[in-house]
Amino acid sequence: MPFAYHRTVHFPDTDAAGVVYFANFLSICHEAYEEALQAAGIELKAFFSETGVVIPVSKSEAEYLRPLACGDKLKITVSPALLSENSFAIRYEVIRLGGGNKVAARVRTEHVCISRQKRERAPLPPVLLAWIKAG
Amino acid sequence: MPFAYHRTVHFPDTDAAGVVYFANFLSICHEAYEEALQAAGIELKAFFSETGVVIPVSKSEAEYLRPLACGDKLKITVSPALLSENSFAIRYEVIRLGGGNKVAARVRTEHVCISRQKRERAPLPPVLLAWIKAG
Amino acid sequence: MPFAYHRTVHFPDTDAAGVVYFANFLSICHEAYEEALQAAGIELKAFFSETGVVIPVSKSEAEYLRPLACGDKLKITVSPALLSENSFAIRYEVIRLGGGNKVAARVRTEHVCISRQKRERAPLPPVLLAWIKAG
Amino acid sequence: MPFAYHRTVHFPDTDAAGVVYFANFLSICHEAYEEALQAAGIELKAFFSETGVVIPVSKSEAEYLRPLACGDKLKITVSPALLSENSFAIRYEVIRLGGGNKVAARVRTEHVCISRQKRERAPLPPVLLAWIKAG
Repeated sequence: MPFAYHRTVHFPDTDAAGVVYFANFLSICHEAYEEALQAAGIELKAFFSETGVVIPVSKSEAEYLRPLACGDKLKITVSPALLSENSFAIRYEVIRLGGGNKVAARVRTEHVCISRQKRERAPLPPVLLAWIKAG
Repeated sequence: MPFAYHRTVHFPDTDAAGVVYFANFLSICHEAYEEALQAAGIELKAFFSETGVVIPVSKSEAEYLRPLACGDKLKITVSPALLSENSFAIRYEVIRLGGGNKVAARVRTEHVCISRQKRERAPLPPVLLAWIKAG
Repeated sequence: MPFAYHRTVHFPDTDAAGVVYFANFLSICHEAYEEALQAAGIELKAFFSETGVVIPVSKSEAEYLRPLACGDKLKITVSPALLSENSFAIRYEVIRLGGGNKVAARVRTEHVCISRQKRERAPLPPVLLAWIKAG
Repeated sequence: MPFAYHRTVHFPDTDAAGVVYFANFLSICHEAYEEALQAAGIELKAFFSETGVVIPVSKSEAEYLRPLACGDKLKITVSPALLSENSFAIRYEVIRLGGGNKVAARVRTEHVCISRQKRERAPLPPVLLAWIKAG
């Protein structure tokens, strides 16, 4: 069972078309990733300062299947997978709860681990590697 | 006891200074307002289409007292007060949980009820009036 | 020559990692798309109310190649291409000006035209079709 | 004559009410402040790393007078004023161009200069002080 994050759609998530702005689906998925890390005991505040690495998103892909409106209740599942010793991918499903729990979006991100000092690829920190392998 | 909304600080809330961007404190408070309405049984999705009014924010004031970082756990209290038959104010406290539960910001918004058709001030819908008076 | 939009990176575009938040690259590209439409004489305000259609983003893909910091000057190119009578794609390059004008991101979005009333696919409005074909 | 920043309203500035989300007026004003600094030769990227200070917003106030829609053309004026040797205020007017150039919002922010190392108030850097006095 992948980690699941629950979230309500709020006004600042939407745009003048009346529904969630497409780029905000990615932000909502990134929130789910942050919550998944915290649930695994990885404190974001300390993590990046202590490990000496940054792990930016290097790619994203999204399919937007259904519009989401203010007040909609969402469940976002988070499924990480290792790509190499210094990169991984995450698949997300954004599910609108109620009315059959339909998938509103499928998102995938890739992340690369980079040494802050050398600005080159670095091995993933063990605690993150463990989280990816468990996912 | 005012309504309280719990929220974690996420990456898109922050800016390059490393902490929550000042305008995002207002968004976080607006989220708390939306959650307070939902907790009172006011469904945002239906509310505005059924009542024929819009209730924009007409003023805001904020004091930013402490920086907030990614992963910080927040409690936001929501205290509404009636100003007139067609307007109200909300006071918010943004409290950083842990380390003494310090107040990170104090925010106040004013809201005016406007008829969608006539574009002029209109009485607050009864259900909203009841929520304000209870607060 | 594709349409080019010029834009400076601002604080709210960035996050605590010190650079533009990945989802905001998509917002910056969408701004470029809006500016390209306006440059072609398509007024967004009137367009959607008059044509009776909505044209949501149905897919997005992005490669994030270089970090962007506050104050960076960007050029975003916008290259539309027809996919069918009711859909099109746009390719964007986000170029950081200065220091060799390097590509910071490559983004692609797909857009589908939907009738507001029937909620089904509808032909693209002629003025938009003309813009895509010219691109 | 105060510095003036020109800006078009884009989709991500708006929310499901169809107009610019109230907190985004503050972001738009902060953009204008950043552009005013750049126009005065203050490079944001280097500024904060070189001066050893941070200058967070400590207060904000806003009156939202008129709704703004996608495609609206704005002019934002930026008028700084010194408050003390380590703090200043900025007044902004957000003007919707066309149809009489009406004021859509009045915003005021206060900023405090803080030493990054000592975490206490520090004198404003001379180049910033000069910009405030000129304004």
